Amino acid sequence: MKVADMDRLSLYRSLARPSDSRILYYVIDGLGGLRQAPGAPTELEAAATPTLDRLADEGSTGLITPVAPGVAPGSGPGHLALFGFDPLETTVGRGVLAALGVGFELQTGDVAARINFCSLDGDGNVIDRRAGRIGSEIGAPLAQRLDGIDLGGGVECIVRHVKEYRACVVFRGAGLDGRIADTDPQATGVPPLAPRVLDDAAAATVDLATTFIERAGELLADQDKANGVLLRGFDSYHPLPSFADLYGVRPAAVAAYPMYRGVARAVGMAVFDAEDTLESRVELTRAALEEHDFLFVHFKATDSRGEDGDFDAKVQQVEIADESLAALLELGFDVVMVTGDHSTPATYKAHSWHPVPALIWGPHCRANAANDGFGETACLSGALGSIRGMDLLPLVLAQAGRLGKFGA
Amino acid sequence: MKVADMDRLSLYRSLARPSDSRILYYVIDGLGGLRQAPGAPTELEAAATPTLDRLADEGSTGLITPVAPGVAPGSGPGHLALFGFDPLETTVGRGVLAALGVGFELQTGDVAARINFCSLDGDGNVIDRRAGRIGSEIGAPLAQRLDGIDLGGGVECIVRHVKEYRACVVFRGAGLDGRIADTDPQATGVPPLAPRVLDDAAAATVDLATTFIERAGELLADQDKANGVLLRGFDSYHPLPSFADLYGVRPAAVAAYPMYRGVARAVGMAVFDAEDTLESRVELTRAALEEHDFLFVHFKATDSRGEDGDFDAKVQQVEIADESLAALLELGFDVVMVTGDHSTPATYKAHSWHPVPALIWGPHCRANAANDGFGETACLSGALGSIRGMDLLPLVLAQAGRLGKFGA
Repeated sequence: MKVADMDRLSLYRSLARPSDSRILYYVIDGLGGLRQAPGAPTELEAAATPTLDRLADEGSTGLITPVAPGVAPGSGPGHLALFGFDPLETTVGRGVLAALGVGFELQTGDVAARINFCSLDGDGNVIDRRAGRIGSEIGAPLAQRLDGIDLGGGVECIVRHVKEYRACVVFRGAGLDGRIADTDPQATGVPPLAPRVLDDAAAATVDLATTFIERAGELLADQDKANGVLLRGFDSYHPLPSFADLYGVRPAAVAAYPMYRGVARAVGMAVFDAEDTLESRVELTRAALEEHDFLFVHFKATDSRGEDGDFDAKVQQVEIADESLAALLELGFDVVMVTGDHSTPATYKAHSWHPVPALIWGPHCRANAANDGFGETACLSGALGSIRGMDLLPLVLAQAGRLGKFGA
Repeated sequence: MKVADMDRLSLYRSLARPSDSRILYYVIDGLGGLRQAPGAPTELEAAATPTLDRLADEGSTGLITPVAPGVAPGSGPGHLALFGFDPLETTVGRGVLAALGVGFELQTGDVAARINFCSLDGDGNVIDRRAGRIGSEIGAPLAQRLDGIDLGGGVECIVRHVKEYRACVVFRGAGLDGRIADTDPQATGVPPLAPRVLDDAAAATVDLATTFIERAGELLADQDKANGVLLRGFDSYHPLPSFADLYGVRPAAVAAYPMYRGVARAVGMAVFDAEDTLESRVELTRAALEEHDFLFVHFKATDSRGEDGDFDAKVQQVEIADESLAALLELGFDVVMVTGDHSTPATYKAHSWHPVPALIWGPHCRANAANDGFGETACLSGALGSIRGMDLLPLVLAQAGRLGKFGA
């Protein structure tokens, strides 16, 4: 983890002022899309979204570039940008996000990595990087089996299950360093890579990781599919500046997936573990509002259907996201923000670099050049313009009366 | 030469991934223009450009600012921006561009300067800064006469002809430094300026340049017009990060003028010396495609007619550029980019600061807000928005499937 954009963040921290306004920060994962042919609508434009359209027309719209031009963001950097960080300056490794995502209480200096259970042949070559996609009923007890491996040297080794074939490991002790390369070879028919330093300071931690992988192999030797582990996303944990401290809000996240709970915890949000249903989202948001005034609510399925390449199914999920939004609005918010952490066009079947539609609805919104609802093309002439992802949050805080004047 | 935007470039280098897509990077020099009166069209809008219009309507358009708001770019910085460099951070002197432009193989540490042959009167005052615009038939043998002047101290002195009254000189030896001011006084009736250090480290090289100018004067004493030399654009040569290394493409340039060949060589492109005709451009591009997949094709005459202040002639050249583009497209490209390195409005008769129309055509393009073809006003509502020149290349690489995801 690294925080190198403190100048910018310090500016906003110095301007933060209290308010009792309530903010809904609604992230529809992979929201941005593409047309299927010139002249045709995108997923968002094809979907019937009466609530999004109303907020767009009453509020201000625009397009955000989460990381940099041409760069498709991972979910981590995409969300860090939405939380006001420069995702090229402030980074959080996947291991740390995974551990935080399952609710593990990381301590400063802990080193965390993501585990994939994998299948190895008799020669030690990877034959399946996801162990035949074993379910959680197999993965969870295997993760438990690896928990507490004795690595010596006063270092604790904690393993937690994430989901299906995914787990995470945390090394806890003095002098650890997470600058270690992935062991996942990203290919089959070859052995896993040995852990390797990215910085010499990580030499001792590489030895620990090597021992861990050996012991794990011994403990998994009886397994048919999951007889090995691949490690990636090593990172040392150091708390990021907290959202509450930076902006003076009382933030909470309502999310159904570990990744998004993890990135929310990384910035000090309280996390409410929702089911992936409208009812659960609304119920937990209602509960969270009792103690919190900045509600990050995450909607996942749009991204998944985009990655599937299923245009119609993504359209349908956008409509479900719109219905959820309508229900959330009944809870009463002063300012509403809606965007995605990146685009996932169904025609592209992956996270893409395209700017993401965004809207801010609140008491002090500039009019868009046209009132065409919420869509990629309409947002081109929106009042927010085309902006960096990290600049969206300050606009929302200002709209909510939570940023003061700079200079006399 | 200076490279100071490595953080940004390292990001893109780290994301570069292989692809067999073919990219046409078509630069219409001085493309941007201005209307002759309110309500009238610009040169680009007045021209009949069916191919540009089709690519704009099927693709995404926008406007680029090559260097900075209000700054008219020279050809060097304009092209460096299009090649993805920050032209305020990465600079290449005119002397180096001239030497590379004529195909001279510079070595690290060489100091190069542009030469203009000039006319001096009996008192040593400049009476013509371009020696009566002598032709190449006079300039070339005079350049040869200056080649190999003995400067002592183990320093080689290499002179090459560029075109007409233009040549370049390269000093090669240990401990040279190119931080030296121009000797061209930019005026007549006054003597040339003496070479002068811009940094004390260049003191020895200033002595060499002073000696070179004296010897050159002796060797040119028999000349009627070209009896002196003016030097400018001193610079030390250090290779820039190569295009192939940064982005994983196999780049080639097809250009008819030394300047553009020089800037292409500066970033490690293979260079195909075209004639300034449609047939030559197409034929060399076809040949280049056998070994290369990123084709930088340069079209010059639009800039020249803009500098002439001839609106109608520039319109005509835009139409010829459009015809060339149609012919180039028949060679088969997956992604096409068209823009200029700067604007050269005929009403302004010079490079100007105005943003330059740009289009990207490829398989994953967002729709523009309106389909009005390719022109300054239409590009205002294009899907690319108003962006920095250096951000165009990453968008093209992404469109061509050549940039991976950032972060997990």
